[in-house]
Amino acid sequence: MTEGQGAPIISALRRAVGAGRVLSRREQVAPFECDALPVYCERPVAVVLARSEADVVATARLCHQHSVPLVTRGAGTGLSAGAKPYGRGVLLVTAPMSEILSLCPDSLTARVQPGAINEQISRAAAAHGLYYAPDPSSQIACSIGGNVAENAGGVHCLKYGVTVHNVVALRIVTIEGEVLSVGGDTLARPGYDLLALVHGSEGCLGIVTEVTVKLTPLPEQTRTLMADFPSVRAASDAVSAIVRAGVIPAAMEMMDALAISATEEFCHAGYALDAAAILIIDLDGAPDEVEAELSLVREELGQSGASRVQLADREAQRALWWKGRKSAFPAIGRLSPDYYCIDGTVPRHRIGDVLEAIDAFSHRYNLRVANVFHAGDGNLHPIIMFNGEEADALKRVELLAADILEYCIEVGGTITGEHGVGMEKINQMAVQFSDAEISQFLAVKQALDPRGLLNPDKLIPTLAHCQEYRAIREQRRDTGNG
Amino acid sequence: MTEGQGAPIISALRRAVGAGRVLSRREQVAPFECDALPVYCERPVAVVLARSEADVVATARLCHQHSVPLVTRGAGTGLSAGAKPYGRGVLLVTAPMSEILSLCPDSLTARVQPGAINEQISRAAAAHGLYYAPDPSSQIACSIGGNVAENAGGVHCLKYGVTVHNVVALRIVTIEGEVLSVGGDTLARPGYDLLALVHGSEGCLGIVTEVTVKLTPLPEQTRTLMADFPSVRAASDAVSAIVRAGVIPAAMEMMDALAISATEEFCHAGYALDAAAILIIDLDGAPDEVEAELSLVREELGQSGASRVQLADREAQRALWWKGRKSAFPAIGRLSPDYYCIDGTVPRHRIGDVLEAIDAFSHRYNLRVANVFHAGDGNLHPIIMFNGEEADALKRVELLAADILEYCIEVGGTITGEHGVGMEKINQMAVQFSDAEISQFLAVKQALDPRGLLNPDKLIPTLAHCQEYRAIREQRRDTGNG
Repeated sequence: MTEGQGAPIISALRRAVGAGRVLSRREQVAPFECDALPVYCERPVAVVLARSEADVVATARLCHQHSVPLVTRGAGTGLSAGAKPYGRGVLLVTAPMSEILSLCPDSLTARVQPGAINEQISRAAAAHGLYYAPDPSSQIACSIGGNVAENAGGVHCLKYGVTVHNVVALRIVTIEGEVLSVGGDTLARPGYDLLALVHGSEGCLGIVTEVTVKLTPLPEQTRTLMADFPSVRAASDAVSAIVRAGVIPAAMEMMDALAISATEEFCHAGYALDAAAILIIDLDGAPDEVEAELSLVREELGQSGASRVQLADREAQRALWWKGRKSAFPAIGRLSPDYYCIDGTVPRHRIGDVLEAIDAFSHRYNLRVANVFHAGDGNLHPIIMFNGEEADALKRVELLAADILEYCIEVGGTITGEHGVGMEKINQMAVQFSDAEISQFLAVKQALDPRGLLNPDKLIPTLAHCQEYRAIREQRRDTGNG
Repeated sequence: MTEGQGAPIISALRRAVGAGRVLSRREQVAPFECDALPVYCERPVAVVLARSEADVVATARLCHQHSVPLVTRGAGTGLSAGAKPYGRGVLLVTAPMSEILSLCPDSLTARVQPGAINEQISRAAAAHGLYYAPDPSSQIACSIGGNVAENAGGVHCLKYGVTVHNVVALRIVTIEGEVLSVGGDTLARPGYDLLALVHGSEGCLGIVTEVTVKLTPLPEQTRTLMADFPSVRAASDAVSAIVRAGVIPAAMEMMDALAISATEEFCHAGYALDAAAILIIDLDGAPDEVEAELSLVREELGQSGASRVQLADREAQRALWWKGRKSAFPAIGRLSPDYYCIDGTVPRHRIGDVLEAIDAFSHRYNLRVANVFHAGDGNLHPIIMFNGEEADALKRVELLAADILEYCIEVGGTITGEHGVGMEKINQMAVQFSDAEISQFLAVKQALDPRGLLNPDKLIPTLAHCQEYRAIREQRRDTGNG
C-alpha cells in the first residue's frame, strides 16, 4: 500500500489520538519494521504511539471500521516475529503506556500498564520486599504486555511459573473497541478462562491495556550449586531425579561442552572445561529450607554421577557463575559468524534423548549446535552456529531447526517454551496439531476477532497451509532429506 | 418430551453403544434426575452409560445430528446443578470410564479416564511416593472429569493449586464428535490455551474423555497448628500476614464461633469454645523446611493477636483437629432443620470485611450463618441455617445468598471458588460480568458448540437474562429490600 492509499485511516487516527502520535513517513516507521527476529520485516501504513486505553480503543475501532489489520507491539524484543507489522496495516505501540498504577503489598499484586518493563516492576516492588518472578533474558527491556502475549518464561519459571501463573487480571480491548476486565485476585473464577486464553495468544485475540501481576516475597536467601557431569545424559537424569525427590529449585540450567568452552573463553566463569555438561542450580527461601534442599540436591547429584559438586561460598562466586550463563549467547556468537536460537520444550525425563538426537541431526546438516537451556522445565535453546555467507547455510539451518522442533513434538514436547510461534514456527504448528485442533483454534480466533484483523497470519496457520506443509514434509522424508 | 418423542435418538443410541447401556424407562432414569443440588431436577429422554471414548463420540455425533441437548455427568457430586439433565435431552454418564490408564513416576503424571475417582488416583500413586494434590471434600466419590468441569479445589489448593494447576493434558470430544488432544507435559504450549479454557467450563464446551494429571511427591512430614483468636478480624489478618511473610501453608482453614460450638458438641475435637475464630494450619515438606515454616508462622500468629497457639504433638491429635473441621457441615446441620452452603471467594486481605458484612446481612434476614472455610485462598463457605417449613424461609435464604455473593464481587472477589455456577448462580453472573464480557463468553461457547447443544442454559446467562436480573436487583435496592 502506498502512503496515499493509507490516507483515510491515517487522518482518522490523527484526529482520534493526536497527530503527533501517528507516524506514517518512511523514516518514522522504519524503526518499527521488525521485532527481534529481523529476518521478517515490513513497514506498516502507520505507527500509533498509544498513551492510554482510550487511544487503544480508538485505534481498534478505526481499524475495525476501515477493515485494516492491526498489529500490537510492546518493546519489540520478541524472537518469533510475532510483532512484525503488515504493509497494509497499522502498528499499535503500547510502549509509552509504561506506568505502575498501583502496588498492593496486602494482596501481593501490582496493577501496571502494558508498556511497563518487566524489571521495572520488580524494582518498584523491592521496597516492600517483593518482586515479579518471571524473568525472561530480555527483562531489562521487554514489556509486561509482550510478556502476556508470548506467555514469557525465564530462568525462574520452574519454581515460580511462566507469565500466566503470575498474572491475576487483565484489561483487554477487543478489535471492536470493547473493554473487557478478565480475571481477578482469587484462585478460581466463574465463566470461561479468558485470562489464560489471552496468555500466549500473541496479539491475535485482543489488546492488553492493563496487567495485574502477582508479586512474590523476595527470598531471604539464595544458594547456588554447580555440578559437573561426564555426559549430557547423566546431567539430564540428575535434573529429573532432583524434581522427583520433591525439590523445585528456583533455577536449574544446563550447558553442554561447546557452550561451556565458548563461555569460559569469553568470561572466565570458572566452568570445568573437561565436563560434558554442567548444571547451575539456585535454591531459594528461608535459610533452614534452603539448607534442607541443599542436602537433598547434593544427594541426587551424587547418585546421578556428578563428577564434582561445588557450592558458591560467597555472593561474588554466585554472580560469576550466573554471569557466565547469561553471557553464553554472545560467547557462542563469537565462535561463529551467525547463530540461530531455537526454543523447544520436552518432558524433563526426555532431555537426554533429545540432546543425543540434536547431536545426530547436526551432523546430518554439517552444522554445530551448542546447548544452554532451562533444564528444570525441559525448555531447550539449541543454538545453531552457521555462516550466512555460505550459499546453502540458511536452508540447512532451517531444515535442522525443523527437525529439532519436530523431534520435540515426537517425544511429547512442544515447539515453543517461551519465544512463541509468531511467523517463525507457523509450519511446525501443522505438525504439533491435528486439523481438528487447528479448526478449534481458528474458531476461537473467529469468536474474539470475527474479521481476522488482529495480527493476521501469525500463531495459527490456515488448514490449507497445514496440508501444504505436511505434504512438503512427507516429500522431504521420502527423498531422505530430513 | 414423552418417551415416544425421544424414540429416534434412543434407538440410534442403542445401535451405537449397545442397548444395555442406554436407559430410558422412568425408573431407570430417575436416579439421574439431579446432581448434589437436588432443588434442580429433571428427567432426561435417555441416560447413556459410556464405556469408552468411542461411546462418547457416537453419543455426541447423534445428539448433534438430531439437535438434542447433551448433558455430561461424572459422579454427580456437583453442588451447583451443573449436571442437571434436560427433559428433552440426553444425559451422558462417564462414571463407568474409571480406569487409571498409566502412571509415569518419571514425568510425575498419570493418565486416567474421566470417571476415575479423585482419591483413587492418589491411592494408585502412593506406591511411588506420589499423590494427586487437589482434594475436594467429596474426593472419595467425585470423578476427575467432574473436577475438570468445575475446576475443583479443596483444602490443599492454597499451596498446590486448583484442578487447572494439576492437569497437564486432556482428550476432549466436541459436540460434532471430533477428538481433540490439548495440553501436554510441558510448562508452556503453543496455540490458544484450550486446556485452561475447558477447566471450569461445566460441560458447555466439550466432553472430557481422558485426563493426564500432575502427581506431587508425598510430603515427608506434615505438622499441624491450631490458633485461637478473640475476633474473626484478627484471625483474618493472621491469614494475610502468614502469606505475606512468604509461607504458603499446605492448608489454612478458618472456623467462626458458631461453627466451633456446633462442631465441638458433635465430635469433641478440642476446639476452644471461647474463641471467636480458630485457624487450623498444615505445614508440609521435608522436616527442616517444616521446622523453618513453623517458626515463621508462630511469629505471625503471635503478632496478629492469637490468644493461644497449639502444635499437634502426635498424629492422633492432628487427625482429631481435622476430623472436627471435616465434620463441621453435618455438625451445623444438627443445629438447624436445613442449611445451604455458599461458595464465594474474596481477596485474602478482605476476609475480615466480608465476614463482618455477612454478619450484618444475616440479621437483615433473621437467619443464622456459620462460617467454616478455606481461608488461605479466600474461599468462603458461609452456611445459612434455616427451617424450610417456614413459609418465606427459602426466599430469605435466596436473598441472603445473593447479597453475600454480590458483596464478594464488590470487594474484588468472585461468586464461586470451587462449586461452579451451574444453574444456581446464573443470576450472579450478571453482576460479576458486564455485557461485553458475557458477549465474549457467548462467542467462545458458539465457537466450540455452534448449535448450543452442550449443557444449555448453564454457566453463561443470555444477555436478556442479565438485563432482567439487573433490573430486578435495582428494584430490590430501591425498595430497600436487600
